Amino acid sequence: MIDRLVEKIKQTEAPIVVGLDPQLNFIPEQILAKSYREFGETLEGAADALFAFNKEIIDATSDLIPAVKPQIAMYERYGIPGLIAFEKTVSYCREKGLVVIGDVKRGDIGSTSAAYADAHLGTVKVGNNTIAPFGEDFATVNPYLGTDGVKPFVDVCKSHDRGIFVLVKTSNPSSGEFQDRLIDGKPLYEWVGEKVNEWGADTIGASGYSDVGAVVGATYPEMGKVLRELMPKAYILVPGYGAQGGQGKDLVHFFNPDGLGAIVNSSRGIIAAWKKEEYAKFGAEAFGAAARAAVLDMKEDIREAIASA
Amino acid sequence: MIDRLVEKIKQTEAPIVVGLDPQLNFIPEQILAKSYREFGETLEGAADALFAFNKEIIDATSDLIPAVKPQIAMYERYGIPGLIAFEKTVSYCREKGLVVIGDVKRGDIGSTSAAYADAHLGTVKVGNNTIAPFGEDFATVNPYLGTDGVKPFVDVCKSHDRGIFVLVKTSNPSSGEFQDRLIDGKPLYEWVGEKVNEWGADTIGASGYSDVGAVVGATYPEMGKVLRELMPKAYILVPGYGAQGGQGKDLVHFFNPDGLGAIVNSSRGIIAAWKKEEYAKFGAEAFGAAARAAVLDMKEDIREAIASA
Repeated sequence: MIDRLVEKIKQTEAPIVVGLDPQLNFIPEQILAKSYREFGETLEGAADALFAFNKEIIDATSDLIPAVKPQIAMYERYGIPGLIAFEKTVSYCREKGLVVIGDVKRGDIGSTSAAYADAHLGTVKVGNNTIAPFGEDFATVNPYLGTDGVKPFVDVCKSHDRGIFVLVKTSNPSSGEFQDRLIDGKPLYEWVGEKVNEWGADTIGASGYSDVGAVVGATYPEMGKVLRELMPKAYILVPGYGAQGGQGKDLVHFFNPDGLGAIVNSSRGIIAAWKKEEYAKFGAEAFGAAARAAVLDMKEDIREAIASA
Repeated sequence: MIDRLVEKIKQTEAPIVVGLDPQLNFIPEQILAKSYREFGETLEGAADALFAFNKEIIDATSDLIPAVKPQIAMYERYGIPGLIAFEKTVSYCREKGLVVIGDVKRGDIGSTSAAYADAHLGTVKVGNNTIAPFGEDFATVNPYLGTDGVKPFVDVCKSHDRGIFVLVKTSNPSSGEFQDRLIDGKPLYEWVGEKVNEWGADTIGASGYSDVGAVVGATYPEMGKVLRELMPKAYILVPGYGAQGGQGKDLVHFFNPDGLGAIVNSSRGIIAAWKKEEYAKFGAEAFGAAARAAVLDMKEDIREAIASA
């Protein structure tokens, strides 16, 4: 699956993933009003608005980008109807040819991790039928439980040509509380990074990259530099650009000299662009066009940063 | 919420939680056949069987136990219909007066963790309505992202009288890969345990325990002993009894001298008891009665272990 992502990144010349993390306050009034009219101020109403909003963002940006990353928490928040909107979002993005990274941060042990892996990346058997429940291409995975927790995901990556991104160094302010602590002179995130290499060792594709990638926050560029070198085969999914404070120049070290090796996520910087002064001229009606403009600006910001590195 | 759990444990004299982690191969043929007849060999069929199975287990055991712990992965595996079965299981257990611990192991950052906390423990606003999406009493939480990831759950515990159990030392064989590594001479799980104290410091109930508890595996009794002393106010949720190898005598150190402070989970040891030689006499038809017998045996095993400690 990593080869398909790399191919799409080359095609679009955009190492960019749009985070589909909708919140109701990002959604223009005309969409909310329509959904509430049809379904009431209910979970169904909220979920209908989430999907309608996503659809317009996707329609406006899908030719520019290789991938999207729906954050499942933003859908799970609205219960079953919300999760139906997640599922519809995944399907719609796949129809549009986008690579879908399910930001699910699941992680458990043995048969339980296998159940999550089946749900998001694989298939389940029911009687004589084989069914793919959610059908993402990639999922994010939490490593705290160790190899037992991650291995079932890697197995499904192999059997179903899928990929994962393991949390190594997250973008949030308190990520250092545990992740930065020194163990035999090396921070925990480096130990996790070494495991990422091990877990992905026999999933290297024709692109030279592994189906087992890593999450490393844009907000920690110096650590990104170290981790880039430590995990040469791992694609790095980089959250924290834009709203969380990461800038183009911070991203340079996440990439390899060939301009590959990293894909940068922006969520509210794109999907809620219409609410920012910079893109206010588009207005609430044209929030999709605002998102498109924000994608183009982000693409240029990253291109310039890489070029001047 | 911890006070309610402690009250129920005293009432039932059973520091036991039944793990509702159904797999299709635990479910007797008569239930599967009925569900497939009605819904086909589909996700809906599988989900219907999961709920019908749970219902019979709950009916057979709910007077003996204080709490259940549905593992959401086992439902998520069957997509949206599976998650509907999860939701129905949570509701049914609450109707029966059981405390419901959603074993969801969620954890993310800031507004994303807040979304998970709203989904499982809190409420969401849609227009003028306030709705509780899944409605568990407790949830399990992964600490790898640090305070940013856990704090939003603690906030919802306070505003909605709910509780969490934070993964400290998990029961699986490779949990030591990261959790046991020494940081300034102390294993990571102790550092996490200290944070559990901090996170829970202002959620101490009348019982003397905190709404912020900890998960510590029965398979590591010596570490349990250390963690019991390190986190005096934290209730410990203990997985790994039974199928994973933990025994009554291993559990002694997880309890305080008053017999409180820990609640021990058994999943397949109870719900799939009918498939074990020991309870085979009940037969597939009476799988609920087999589960009841297994609960009574587990209760006695733990009682004896505590008494002889």
